[in-house]
Amino acid sequence: MGLNSYSFRVRYAETDQMGVVYHGNYAQYFELGRVEWLRAMGITYKSMEDNGIMLPVISLHINYKKSALYDDLLTVKTQLKSKPMVKIEFDYTLINESGELLATANTVLAFMDKKTGRPIKCPDYILEKLDD
Amino acid sequence: MGLNSYSFRVRYAETDQMGVVYHGNYAQYFELGRVEWLRAMGITYKSMEDNGIMLPVISLHINYKKSALYDDLLTVKTQLKSKPMVKIEFDYTLINESGELLATANTVLAFMDKKTGRPIKCPDYILEKLDD
Amino acid sequence: MGLNSYSFRVRYAETDQMGVVYHGNYAQYFELGRVEWLRAMGITYKSMEDNGIMLPVISLHINYKKSALYDDLLTVKTQLKSKPMVKIEFDYTLINESGELLATANTVLAFMDKKTGRPIKCPDYILEKLDD
Amino acid sequence: MGLNSYSFRVRYAETDQMGVVYHGNYAQYFELGRVEWLRAMGITYKSMEDNGIMLPVISLHINYKKSALYDDLLTVKTQLKSKPMVKIEFDYTLINESGELLATANTVLAFMDKKTGRPIKCPDYILEKLDD
Repeated sequence: MGLNSYSFRVRYAETDQMGVVYHGNYAQYFELGRVEWLRAMGITYKSMEDNGIMLPVISLHINYKKSALYDDLLTVKTQLKSKPMVKIEFDYTLINESGELLATANTVLAFMDKKTGRPIKCPDYILEKLDD
Repeated sequence: MGLNSYSFRVRYAETDQMGVVYHGNYAQYFELGRVEWLRAMGITYKSMEDNGIMLPVISLHINYKKSALYDDLLTVKTQLKSKPMVKIEFDYTLINESGELLATANTVLAFMDKKTGRPIKCPDYILEKLDD
Repeated sequence: MGLNSYSFRVRYAETDQMGVVYHGNYAQYFELGRVEWLRAMGITYKSMEDNGIMLPVISLHINYKKSALYDDLLTVKTQLKSKPMVKIEFDYTLINESGELLATANTVLAFMDKKTGRPIKCPDYILEKLDD
Repeated sequence: MGLNSYSFRVRYAETDQMGVVYHGNYAQYFELGRVEWLRAMGITYKSMEDNGIMLPVISLHINYKKSALYDDLLTVKTQLKSKPMVKIEFDYTLINESGELLATANTVLAFMDKKTGRPIKCPDYILEKLDD
């Protein structure tokens, strides 16, 4: 249940007139983190949705420490918190190129059947990858 | 085939570090304009989609004249350009509270069947409203 | 230290392919809430920034209960949590037109001097308005 | 005055409930294109702004051909149209991993002095790079 790192550059559109990344846009960065965490395990979130599973976010907690700036090369580190059941929980840290901690975050997502809209268990093919 | 005016306030998230509204966000403002143009005719875009019709944008042209600022109360004026066939074309002007012209724009959208993904004619219930 | 309610309509651009409002966009809704809370007290956030005070968000917590949908008329209720000192804390609830609870949230923001980038106390003119 | 190619992956937040990338978000993609075009010449847009030059967009034209989808690996090709004077004009094409043409676009931007807000000529250090 490893840690995944993913780096990306801050876009102009993501800044606001305070001259820093708009605080609401961090949600996208943490999503990039967990999507790439999955991809690193050989799973795409796209294929999960295509196979009828959705993963709505049910809680989002962000603590902002330092501002992210335009054109910064950021790294989001994504860590699975525990074995997923009907929910899956991740912790994140976001750092800049100088290694400064910009934010920490936590999200809980729920496995949901796309057709019925009802909660389901974490698919076995994910649990198996986690056991590897 | 009237003109509709719709006013709204600029959000903080819509600005960028130039201290003005990010140019790409104007696309949302013109969409607000045409959605409210429809609503003023007694039609909601939501109900159109629910009834299986989608209206993808096939061209977007914006000319920027003056910057929109945070917390400005903007007005988008939306004008249907001609009787819609398989496409529907709108002209827009965006002004601020002082009446200054911020931008002009034009969009062409295509009527599309949601199931087949194929182009269709403008629904009769829209044409009838336009004749009123 | 009253409660303020503000209503607004969900934009198309705010949805994602799950067919609901993208979870990260709720941050903008809560910002609308506190900006209108301030305005209801006779203060604009714009004038605060123009006068050299910034209010960066230092934590954002959102719990998602039910999906917000395109064209929904939402209401955000914003409640100041305690007398502001160097920080100001708000609780929020977001409901739809049927009165269903969509989300609860909490933000903490810090008063900051724009020039020095250093924390400052809540300006007196805000404290005075709160005492009224 | 070469052509630059830049590839990136579509984010979930960029989609809308039509199941495709929201048309207004393409503006960000073309901005990525011209920012990376500059970087390929050894210039960062960030350093230009830091040195007092801004480049507001004064026109944006997009023709949409085919939908971009979530998780698609897109490539934006950015081509300078002519020698920049007080304005700089770019043509863009956006393609997906299968080589399908998704959109063409054109932007005109103006060189502007950040302090005075007045138009200026394209800086010599850019013209020199173009002559190389």
